[in-house]
Amino acid sequence: MAVVVQKYGGSSLKTVDKIKKVAETVIKRKDKGDSVVVVVSAMGDTTDELICLAKQISNNPDKRELDALVSTGEMISSSLLAMAIKNMGYDAVSYTAYQLGIKTSGQFGKSLIDDIDGVKLRESLIEGKIVIIAGFQGINEDGDITTLGRGGSDTTAVAIAVRLGGVCEIYTDVDGIYSVDPRNYKNAKKLDEIDYEEMLELASLGAQVMHSRSIELGQKYNIPIYVGLSNSDIPGTIIKEVTNMNMESKPVTGIATSDDDVAVTLGEISNRINILATLFERIASKKINIDMISQTAPVNDKVNISFTIPKEEVGECMEILKDFVSADKISIDDDLTKFSVVGIGMKNTSGVTATVFKLFDENNIQVKMITTSEIRITCGIKREDKMKAIEIVAEKFAL
Amino acid sequence: MAVVVQKYGGSSLKTVDKIKKVAETVIKRKDKGDSVVVVVSAMGDTTDELICLAKQISNNPDKRELDALVSTGEMISSSLLAMAIKNMGYDAVSYTAYQLGIKTSGQFGKSLIDDIDGVKLRESLIEGKIVIIAGFQGINEDGDITTLGRGGSDTTAVAIAVRLGGVCEIYTDVDGIYSVDPRNYKNAKKLDEIDYEEMLELASLGAQVMHSRSIELGQKYNIPIYVGLSNSDIPGTIIKEVTNMNMESKPVTGIATSDDDVAVTLGEISNRINILATLFERIASKKINIDMISQTAPVNDKVNISFTIPKEEVGECMEILKDFVSADKISIDDDLTKFSVVGIGMKNTSGVTATVFKLFDENNIQVKMITTSEIRITCGIKREDKMKAIEIVAEKFAL
Repeated sequence: MAVVVQKYGGSSLKTVDKIKKVAETVIKRKDKGDSVVVVVSAMGDTTDELICLAKQISNNPDKRELDALVSTGEMISSSLLAMAIKNMGYDAVSYTAYQLGIKTSGQFGKSLIDDIDGVKLRESLIEGKIVIIAGFQGINEDGDITTLGRGGSDTTAVAIAVRLGGVCEIYTDVDGIYSVDPRNYKNAKKLDEIDYEEMLELASLGAQVMHSRSIELGQKYNIPIYVGLSNSDIPGTIIKEVTNMNMESKPVTGIATSDDDVAVTLGEISNRINILATLFERIASKKINIDMISQTAPVNDKVNISFTIPKEEVGECMEILKDFVSADKISIDDDLTKFSVVGIGMKNTSGVTATVFKLFDENNIQVKMITTSEIRITCGIKREDKMKAIEIVAEKFAL
Repeated sequence: MAVVVQKYGGSSLKTVDKIKKVAETVIKRKDKGDSVVVVVSAMGDTTDELICLAKQISNNPDKRELDALVSTGEMISSSLLAMAIKNMGYDAVSYTAYQLGIKTSGQFGKSLIDDIDGVKLRESLIEGKIVIIAGFQGINEDGDITTLGRGGSDTTAVAIAVRLGGVCEIYTDVDGIYSVDPRNYKNAKKLDEIDYEEMLELASLGAQVMHSRSIELGQKYNIPIYVGLSNSDIPGTIIKEVTNMNMESKPVTGIATSDDDVAVTLGEISNRINILATLFERIASKKINIDMISQTAPVNDKVNISFTIPKEEVGECMEILKDFVSADKISIDDDLTKFSVVGIGMKNTSGVTATVFKLFDENNIQVKMITTSEIRITCGIKREDKMKAIEIVAEKFAL
């Protein structure tokens, strides 16, 4: 008897009729003889609606109370789904994080799962029940309700699969992982499988299909994660460890783009490593995510330094920067697309960077900034060049 | 430093603006130097909306899941109120039944509070926090979320006041307890105080101001309960033990009416006490509330027996009755108003029953059934006679 952990997103649970459809799908799986655990997101836009209520109370709502508030969305959908399954004659039970002992630590709104007490979960499965779990939520050591961050139900699902030693299936409104976002490139191909590393690079780079922490967790415990449509014969994508890199495997698996960042350039800053260290430390302490740092060669012991930050954190970042350079030496470039080429095959295949740069040069695409990892190249380009860049790179690598 | 437990109903929390108003009122009380605990109902019609969702899933939604579902309404309002108070610069914290250890037993949807673990509550008050509690909910010994029944937040509030040894204030959309429902009798007078017993009779008889279990609890532990408008100078009513019955005290305190029951009559049932006992036992086991039992004198060892039950339980009751008598011997009278005259002074004053019957006779009001307690007379009358009955009795006893 295998244990299957299925996760259904908000769009699959948007209405009562959709909840009934999910109940039918879950029951079909149960009828195959598997033990079924279902992790649910909140119905449709419930989370946004709850956040909207909080924002009407306060521009900066208390974080403990905000987590307590938004966690109710998943409680509603989990009990409705359990009701629907029971109404179809199958035994089911819904659990909150409290009831299941999903222990978290870290900040409200982005807490981390430390542990899950599997006892109640296993007991219910042994009793033949279909277990429905409110995703996205946990309980910290003070007994406060916490949430895992947007998309956190994915992480709940993988964590439950880890605890039970089962497989994990994420049902969403896309039919799998594509090499390129199909909204940007109509010839994009769906991948049958993708390595955790590649998916992580894609997830953190703006391919909004999955909560990236769920993939890290899957990778750590080697839990295969299926991503696809529910109630559909269209096969999705399996995220797993891809080891059989044969000769024909492609160096590039996918392209991800993001328009959510701006480039900040500081002019003529003193080239002392301790000043830069203090600057980045200050920024990091505010949990502002810096990416794509580049620096010019020093002139008169002064350098120019550029880095990207998320758009919405410009204000907070500026406050810190003013302690280091005068305002007229700070420039913000918000005409920026982060364009990333990802592929585990890049570990073995040289020349991908050269190919990409040659393509960009031939097509007059200016590269503003560059960062690379073992399996990724990211270029900062002008937003107007985005679609062209996607097209030429996708064609070149047959994505 | 006194401990004050305030309860705000759904109409006081209907919108974000109303929640902010409640926050201001609570803070004013805190500023007086009291320790303040606030028990909240769900915002406006939230509970009904959640029940409506459940009914779309199933005509008979699973009771455990229904409780888990509807309990979210109070979690939402409690976290929003805590946010609002914190936003005004005062420390506050919201707690669910789980977090506070509100232990219940009995059936879902009408569970009873067994105990409250006061430790977390007291700690938070000592830290100077305003504590906001999600009313209406509890946790049973299996760790399931339960609810206390409609209006159960009143009972949560009184139970918390009992646990903390404080006073209890119920803020609602009426400005106090009236001798007669002002919607039915425009000259109705508001009472400054009312005895627990009288209030219990009125509450259980259709004066929908308070959850009757909250009054029982207040009586048991002698906790005075104030009922009135929030944020208003209009004085409300105090429910407490009224001992000073002086000569001028009135025999009748109030009138309550209810149109929610039907009279069931069983014809020619065998007059054996064991058959009746079995019948009523079967009905009681389904938690159907029987009231106003009357029986005719036996003819040929057969009797007619009538009793009232809540309208919505007719279907379930009929199933049981069919095991005892044939369907043609069962008749249902749904043209029924239960008309009750209540007064702790009736213990000392005879003749109230006679006065009421005389009034009814003079006004051609037919009495179908009668029951009495030490401080109450209830008559089953035709619905068309209700308003006239209220008027003549209220005038007679100067209510």
